[in-house]
Amino acid sequence: MRVGVVAKVDKKEAVVAAKKVVDFLRKKAEVAVEEQTGKKIGIKGKSLKKMKADIIVAVGGDGTILRTLQACDAPVFGINAGAVGFLTEVTPDNAAAGLNRILRNDYAVDKRTKIKVMLNRERLYDCVNEVVIHTAHIAKMRHFKIFIDNVKAEEIRADGIIVATPTGSTCYAMSVGSPILDPRVDALVIAPIAPFKLSARPIVVPAKSRITITCSRGPSLLVLDGQCERKVEKDDVVSFTASKTPARFIRFDHNFYRRIREGLIL
Amino acid sequence: MRVGVVAKVDKKEAVVAAKKVVDFLRKKAEVAVEEQTGKKIGIKGKSLKKMKADIIVAVGGDGTILRTLQACDAPVFGINAGAVGFLTEVTPDNAAAGLNRILRNDYAVDKRTKIKVMLNRERLYDCVNEVVIHTAHIAKMRHFKIFIDNVKAEEIRADGIIVATPTGSTCYAMSVGSPILDPRVDALVIAPIAPFKLSARPIVVPAKSRITITCSRGPSLLVLDGQCERKVEKDDVVSFTASKTPARFIRFDHNFYRRIREGLIL
Amino acid sequence: MRVGVVAKVDKKEAVVAAKKVVDFLRKKAEVAVEEQTGKKIGIKGKSLKKMKADIIVAVGGDGTILRTLQACDAPVFGINAGAVGFLTEVTPDNAAAGLNRILRNDYAVDKRTKIKVMLNRERLYDCVNEVVIHTAHIAKMRHFKIFIDNVKAEEIRADGIIVATPTGSTCYAMSVGSPILDPRVDALVIAPIAPFKLSARPIVVPAKSRITITCSRGPSLLVLDGQCERKVEKDDVVSFTASKTPARFIRFDHNFYRRIREGLIL
Amino acid sequence: MRVGVVAKVDKKEAVVAAKKVVDFLRKKAEVAVEEQTGKKIGIKGKSLKKMKADIIVAVGGDGTILRTLQACDAPVFGINAGAVGFLTEVTPDNAAAGLNRILRNDYAVDKRTKIKVMLNRERLYDCVNEVVIHTAHIAKMRHFKIFIDNVKAEEIRADGIIVATPTGSTCYAMSVGSPILDPRVDALVIAPIAPFKLSARPIVVPAKSRITITCSRGPSLLVLDGQCERKVEKDDVVSFTASKTPARFIRFDHNFYRRIREGLIL
Repeated sequence: MRVGVVAKVDKKEAVVAAKKVVDFLRKKAEVAVEEQTGKKIGIKGKSLKKMKADIIVAVGGDGTILRTLQACDAPVFGINAGAVGFLTEVTPDNAAAGLNRILRNDYAVDKRTKIKVMLNRERLYDCVNEVVIHTAHIAKMRHFKIFIDNVKAEEIRADGIIVATPTGSTCYAMSVGSPILDPRVDALVIAPIAPFKLSARPIVVPAKSRITITCSRGPSLLVLDGQCERKVEKDDVVSFTASKTPARFIRFDHNFYRRIREGLIL
Repeated sequence: MRVGVVAKVDKKEAVVAAKKVVDFLRKKAEVAVEEQTGKKIGIKGKSLKKMKADIIVAVGGDGTILRTLQACDAPVFGINAGAVGFLTEVTPDNAAAGLNRILRNDYAVDKRTKIKVMLNRERLYDCVNEVVIHTAHIAKMRHFKIFIDNVKAEEIRADGIIVATPTGSTCYAMSVGSPILDPRVDALVIAPIAPFKLSARPIVVPAKSRITITCSRGPSLLVLDGQCERKVEKDDVVSFTASKTPARFIRFDHNFYRRIREGLIL
Repeated sequence: MRVGVVAKVDKKEAVVAAKKVVDFLRKKAEVAVEEQTGKKIGIKGKSLKKMKADIIVAVGGDGTILRTLQACDAPVFGINAGAVGFLTEVTPDNAAAGLNRILRNDYAVDKRTKIKVMLNRERLYDCVNEVVIHTAHIAKMRHFKIFIDNVKAEEIRADGIIVATPTGSTCYAMSVGSPILDPRVDALVIAPIAPFKLSARPIVVPAKSRITITCSRGPSLLVLDGQCERKVEKDDVVSFTASKTPARFIRFDHNFYRRIREGLIL
Repeated sequence: MRVGVVAKVDKKEAVVAAKKVVDFLRKKAEVAVEEQTGKKIGIKGKSLKKMKADIIVAVGGDGTILRTLQACDAPVFGINAGAVGFLTEVTPDNAAAGLNRILRNDYAVDKRTKIKVMLNRERLYDCVNEVVIHTAHIAKMRHFKIFIDNVKAEEIRADGIIVATPTGSTCYAMSVGSPILDPRVDALVIAPIAPFKLSARPIVVPAKSRITITCSRGPSLLVLDGQCERKVEKDDVVSFTASKTPARFIRFDHNFYRRIREGLIL
């Protein structure tokens, strides 16, 4: 087994924990270290895209996990060394025990729907949590039109629109009134941010449907998993559908409701 | 083709329209009339269960459609002669044109998930819109436990709990904050009524999952599609999952979003 | 000072604690015991209405407090011996310390708006938390018209309507989406239960305004502070305004936000 | 009577209508024209602050009205020549009839609470609708602390916080779940935008209370009535209370509920 290791390099605990992971794994498996992480721990590394790992160990918070998943498709094992760790599986203290379980194949893979995002004809990163289209001018709402499979489903003035996966339904989308989506539900949820329309409601659509959003006036911002931004102008068309490849998380207990109730998610 | 006809017998317009439907169809198809409807229009009828129709024409409001679907599995063509007609397809004025389209096979069948309901070991009616468990003592909340596939997902004091299909997501469930579920989403939504818990949110679960609800103290009422009631006591277990057979509606335009936007649904 | 004592007589802890209160107070003040409570602790008692106390010590939960406030206007000191004690001030363990503070006049009186309720021309009990008009037939909504100072403010189909005081805004009303009202705001909040109207919102009106509600079809139930019920029929008119006399609670720290944050209220 | 006239100068209809207003009024009253408006219609004007009018006629949309109210305290008569005219009273077609009613003193003055805003020790403009503190970095929430009269009432991660008057409760605040506040209620409402906290609720506080908000990290933006912005950094303190002078609107029918129901407001 080839294991990749990546850390949140600007966080000391994460780098320390990543070093321990590398030391631990080296005796038992082939190890590849991500470039920037490698610089911090004195090992020559490779970019995530090129390391061809069977599994990635990501040490940091949710941001680290999300950026890792944008760069490669391998299953991710998250070790929480960040402020927000909904997507991580263990703390640094339990990392060794977790790695041992992985090495002896005693784990489950939790597959999660990702969103494929197109800005006009350009494919952007797939998102694990959500994509947001938000007015670039704070407190000046935009006029959005939302089409589901080419039929207009909603027309609304709002600060923005969130399109979220079930995974993202307990993150930003939750803040604007999204329901909780069991991750086994093959769907995406569309939820407006501050809709100036009393009848606005979140809409749950099939994962395979094509969601298209246009925005009356620019500029707006497209924010992908809270990690990167793109400007959207008046005539741009943004569209969404479920990605063909899921995000994969290594889990020891992946019952969604148990995790919610234990506060791992909410 | 064998066409069954049923009407809301306590509504004159419905009986008049049903008579016209029977007269119209007789020359062109085999016609069976539901027992009570038959009494009103002077034709010997049969119960819905026994009439073995290929299609049922139901004349009335949503209540008529829902009761028809509880009694038989044939596709239903709804003619609106009631106050609330979200589930109907045409008005009496357009009935003849609609029937002609049906006779020449020019229609679509809109399949909608139904909920299978078990009260302890007894199977109750399948529901098209929703099942409600509601305190029988108004303004005295109950303590509900909700299990998804045997894992406790929520524990909550509330007036009641609604379990709705996508079809029902725009009915009673909507009144308590449910999202809109596209009917193609293979899911049910669980939404509490007046939850005494600030963190309560609707939960969207896979249609195939088994939802089990228990209620701390009795009595509560189980209300099936707003049509019939059963008492639920303290130790009773109510469970829900998607029914194997869907409800089938005859539609000429069954795009869900077009119907919502034209106010047919909301 | 004349102190009245009342307990939740069907709860043993409450009766025990009430007996201790009486023993404690007897040496220091004039004590009157409520009739039913008296029977339990072997002292001849008087009805709350007749005991002319300067202060009432109520031992039990919120129900006990609410019933006490319906029967008399004296300031209430609540000792929590019930399941729900948002309105109480101390636990039985702290009762003696609290009574000492009262005897040496070291307390504040927290005045809370009550609702005056008229059913046609009959004045019912004043309510401390809320009045609910709810369909008497579960899951069959009613059509309500709400008038504010004789102008129609809302027309809505719903399960019911809650009219709540600021005190009640964190109770039942909260379950249906009411905002939190600081008790110093001189207002009432009107919040629908399961409104079948997407644009429905809670409305905050001046305490002195006259709220009138009619209900299309009967029967409905009027529930006063969750303690007593009256039937409402089709042509009945129910009206509400702030009561001239407030409820008065004896408090040692009556900062509302501190209480909320410490979980005493929410 | 001295009447001031101001128009939305970048909107032709507004300028045309303003010219008609000036021509109409000149024969009957003393008229002062706002500087920029004067340039457009060929009359020497004065700034709103200096014109000392008894009444201001503002021709445009809500933005025009809000900017006028920020500059002076006179009662405003709004003529709608803009897209959004919740705050205006008549259309240009009814302007002459309205002005005649004003000249013969046949009108009411609708007084509305304004918010006094302090950024540290600097007093900013009073707001008629709302003040928003919003993260300056879209989709990166901030950590806000909200104090009411120096007691911490809420601590919350969110995109922003809205503090609104009753007038503003049907504008931006409504988009994030604020209740409707009858304008006679002497209160302000605090409503979070996209709160990452399931228990967050709008809070209605007395108009006279002092609301203080701090923000964990900068930069954030303070947006006043949607018209002007100020940057807020980490250690800044923003505080709010009702202004001593109300906004005054000239109305012919100022019943709030009638206006809501006729769609003038919502």
